[in-house]
Amino acid sequence: MSRKISRASCLMEHRVPITAYASIVGKEESEGPLGRYFDESSDDAYFGRDTWEQGEAELLHKTVKLAVKKAGISERDLDYVVAGDLLNQCVSSTYGINGLDVPYIGIYSACSTVAEGLMLGAMLTDSGLSQNLIVSTSSHFAAAERQFRFPLHYGGVRTPTAQWTCTASGAVIISAEDSPLDCADAPVIKAVTTGKIVDYGVVDASNMGAAMAPAAADTIKTFFSDTKMKPTDFDAIVTGDLGRVGTKLLHKLLEADNIDISAVHEDCGSLIFDDNVQDVHAGGSGAGCSASVLCAYFLPKLKKRELKNILFCATGALMSTTVSQQGSSIPCICHAVHISAV
Amino acid sequence: MSRKISRASCLMEHRVPITAYASIVGKEESEGPLGRYFDESSDDAYFGRDTWEQGEAELLHKTVKLAVKKAGISERDLDYVVAGDLLNQCVSSTYGINGLDVPYIGIYSACSTVAEGLMLGAMLTDSGLSQNLIVSTSSHFAAAERQFRFPLHYGGVRTPTAQWTCTASGAVIISAEDSPLDCADAPVIKAVTTGKIVDYGVVDASNMGAAMAPAAADTIKTFFSDTKMKPTDFDAIVTGDLGRVGTKLLHKLLEADNIDISAVHEDCGSLIFDDNVQDVHAGGSGAGCSASVLCAYFLPKLKKRELKNILFCATGALMSTTVSQQGSSIPCICHAVHISAV
Repeated sequence: MSRKISRASCLMEHRVPITAYASIVGKEESEGPLGRYFDESSDDAYFGRDTWEQGEAELLHKTVKLAVKKAGISERDLDYVVAGDLLNQCVSSTYGINGLDVPYIGIYSACSTVAEGLMLGAMLTDSGLSQNLIVSTSSHFAAAERQFRFPLHYGGVRTPTAQWTCTASGAVIISAEDSPLDCADAPVIKAVTTGKIVDYGVVDASNMGAAMAPAAADTIKTFFSDTKMKPTDFDAIVTGDLGRVGTKLLHKLLEADNIDISAVHEDCGSLIFDDNVQDVHAGGSGAGCSASVLCAYFLPKLKKRELKNILFCATGALMSTTVSQQGSSIPCICHAVHISAV
Repeated sequence: MSRKISRASCLMEHRVPITAYASIVGKEESEGPLGRYFDESSDDAYFGRDTWEQGEAELLHKTVKLAVKKAGISERDLDYVVAGDLLNQCVSSTYGINGLDVPYIGIYSACSTVAEGLMLGAMLTDSGLSQNLIVSTSSHFAAAERQFRFPLHYGGVRTPTAQWTCTASGAVIISAEDSPLDCADAPVIKAVTTGKIVDYGVVDASNMGAAMAPAAADTIKTFFSDTKMKPTDFDAIVTGDLGRVGTKLLHKLLEADNIDISAVHEDCGSLIFDDNVQDVHAGGSGAGCSASVLCAYFLPKLKKRELKNILFCATGALMSTTVSQQGSSIPCICHAVHISAV
């Protein structure tokens, strides 16, 4: 079929509108440069629950409920929830969704989870297999730190290349073109590119930006090669959480292929915190980072036609602490989603 | 569209053939009643690598390569790898797939991962979005025990309801109807039902069968209600790893809805070991259990027309050790896939 233009890339055949979205963040994120854009924030890292893990599940749950409410529908109107997160066995998604009575598609793509979800959601919707579905993910600073690095109470010193896992969640509702939710100003998904696993041999789990940059470069290059589009066709090429270190590497890697994205490149991990004021080191990270920034900042700008076309390319580092401690390098991935105001 | 018959269920519009499959298991599994059916087995729990986790990744890698070889193709002919597993951050999949140069869709559904993969793979293929794709998953006794319960060297005593995580991997290639790989005797996927998260409040992580049985009952009931089919339409209704405890509960739960599957019910976790000889307690489990039994036992029987129709319903328990230790109950899920010889 013509809409499948390569092994990795598909063009949407129908209008695939994003009909609602929501974002909720923690205290640190609400105090950053994007603070006023998020729908809600909480000063309570537990989100009213007993543990950080339960708190993250509550955060995801509230964000999904808020997106559903903003869409003016109920969960019964959703064909699927597509979700995943960074916690072992994706428990913030499974416990956050528990009780919602919606068919569940569990995904895992580390910090690129929201991009994988948008990609799958768009493919299922464009194929007539979903009327409305929701894509969601989350991350939580304290839950992630104790799982991946050190319990916060140790007071461990973070390296200069380390990033700050955001306490944040984003949720996106994708609808079919004949859904009553669709309206003229809804941003639409035009194309998706599924990433391959890319591993340049980086073994430093405190330098995720360096590990993930080659995956971003590979997918961005594939997207442009498959679609015959170019960086100047986009108002913004948005990576997830490469941070300061990964951003420089991405530009260098793409330069080698004569692709210059520097004029339009934005990184959610660099946008969400102000490192002059907030001591986050190389920038924000986490599955909830790109998801919340997409929902709070980029999708509204597309809706208001302040942006016409963005290429959203969240990256993920697919290691675990167990294999990192065994000395394995970090395999990474990036999925790309072309979202348009037109 | 007519093929979407409910929020949860889709009928395939085209022929969606399973064109190749492979299974590789460990020593314990090769000594069980199904030993002679698996393609390969290994007496080395490390599969030639340095750690159990790397060994599991190698197991998945070898199984994927074997399925590709049996199909007579190369990895370049695959549009997608759809994979996931039980290890934290699904590392046996990401490290097992690393280097294969195929677009990667990471999924997580615990021990029902292969069913989620078949469901997504069938939906993408039926929609014209994939020519050939591979679905794979794995599990590993030693890697799972130390991650979820106790390091083996502790010599902990297992409870009577505990199940034995299989060291096993299965890989299934799904092709489009116009793929040169298709042939008249290929089993075909006819319908899929996506499960909802079901949580009956079981908190005992050593009694997965009891936790998962309600999810199996919910999805099986939904499948029959949506498709208007009945248990007698199937030669086998195959659950993943309910084991002895969960099997009894599933029959009881379905009885309450006047659904009697007892005459055709088979459970991969009960088939793979002989508990009279092998001290596995309530049966086998793990993402690789249902995947390897499907590939070694059920798909060949469908190909040979010894079975005409099976309903494959693997279940997954979606908790982590962290939330279990915090006292949370275990949310579970089951996805159903109707596979036919016709």
